[in-house]
Amino acid sequence: MLDIKLPEAASPIANYLSYVVNGNMVYISGQISKLGDNLIAGKLGKDISVEAAKDAARICGLNLLAQLKKACDGDLSRVKRCVRLGVFVNSTLEFIDHPPIANGVSDLMVEVFGEAGKHARSTIGLASLPLGAAVEVEGLFELQ
Amino acid sequence: MLDIKLPEAASPIANYLSYVVNGNMVYISGQISKLGDNLIAGKLGKDISVEAAKDAARICGLNLLAQLKKACDGDLSRVKRCVRLGVFVNSTLEFIDHPPIANGVSDLMVEVFGEAGKHARSTIGLASLPLGAAVEVEGLFELQ
Amino acid sequence: MLDIKLPEAASPIANYLSYVVNGNMVYISGQISKLGDNLIAGKLGKDISVEAAKDAARICGLNLLAQLKKACDGDLSRVKRCVRLGVFVNSTLEFIDHPPIANGVSDLMVEVFGEAGKHARSTIGLASLPLGAAVEVEGLFELQ
Repeated sequence: MLDIKLPEAASPIANYLSYVVNGNMVYISGQISKLGDNLIAGKLGKDISVEAAKDAARICGLNLLAQLKKACDGDLSRVKRCVRLGVFVNSTLEFIDHPPIANGVSDLMVEVFGEAGKHARSTIGLASLPLGAAVEVEGLFELQ
Repeated sequence: MLDIKLPEAASPIANYLSYVVNGNMVYISGQISKLGDNLIAGKLGKDISVEAAKDAARICGLNLLAQLKKACDGDLSRVKRCVRLGVFVNSTLEFIDHPPIANGVSDLMVEVFGEAGKHARSTIGLASLPLGAAVEVEGLFELQ
Repeated sequence: MLDIKLPEAASPIANYLSYVVNGNMVYISGQISKLGDNLIAGKLGKDISVEAAKDAARICGLNLLAQLKKACDGDLSRVKRCVRLGVFVNSTLEFIDHPPIANGVSDLMVEVFGEAGKHARSTIGLASLPLGAAVEVEGLFELQ
């Protein structure tokens, strides 16, 4: 695995969890494009470029990995594979170029886990996202 | 568990089911904010308040619990935990305050199941929902 | 099973997969309404009818079945059931008539698998979809 610095795993301040371990599966809550206090906001087709949103998707992925690492008690080598990602892109009604944005998080998973990072993926364009984030990604992972 | 009165579990009149039991997992179809014949419609950022939509999310949760109870042959004590909720908020292109709405259904799960009601959660803003409902929620639960 | 001609199973040209087999579950990536080179584009409430979008949803279903067949090494009789479908409808902010569109893919599953084709389903209206597709559907299936 590459030496990628992960952010702090944020904890929800409401009645839900950042992740749930169910058998050997880890369901991770939707992570928005926010690194520390730095929110990557914006709506595709209006005020953020595809390239910047691809970076935003990668940040969502870093947040997913931070949660996943916590779910593994700090040992990401316990991850067997990335099973599924749901990629949510904040967009206008006219936007059509979602896949390169989603690649920002897909590429990260393969950088970190190699072939085991390849996953099923659904990419959709949302009218709005929490805090006005440009991207949100949820994940499902399998542990050894 | 609190003594919460659940609505009738609605049955689809098309080629799908309100829930599917898969091993010890229960996948529940998206439940909209409709209590009996009373639809809570509206779009956040336009014609319904965050507080009213939080109530709408709770109603989606009551409908989820009604389906879940049916999946358990009437015995909710067979529920081991709430694993994941997908919270879909009908919104304008400018709305950004989704989390307190989603808390309406998250809080209900913890009222009913305690710590076992805490779940992974993804909250997103939709351009539209069936019937113009304000909120729709899908759920994944684990049985004992 | 009916004799339905399935399309070629498309392969992603990025760092994700069309499907992931996890134990006896198959997670299939979101499939858009595109048959070969023929994209069914459009936004409900604006430039495509409910009836045409129902056909588009069926096409998404054919693409799901093509991937599923590949996941089963060509033998769809190994499919135990369709567990869940996520139906994503490209729509205006005013559209409210999603269920008949989703029936296009739900009906296909029951044509192909009979009672085992009935599934949990969530149907939502998106601001945008990749390539401007009218419909996208993701699926979860159980194998024998």
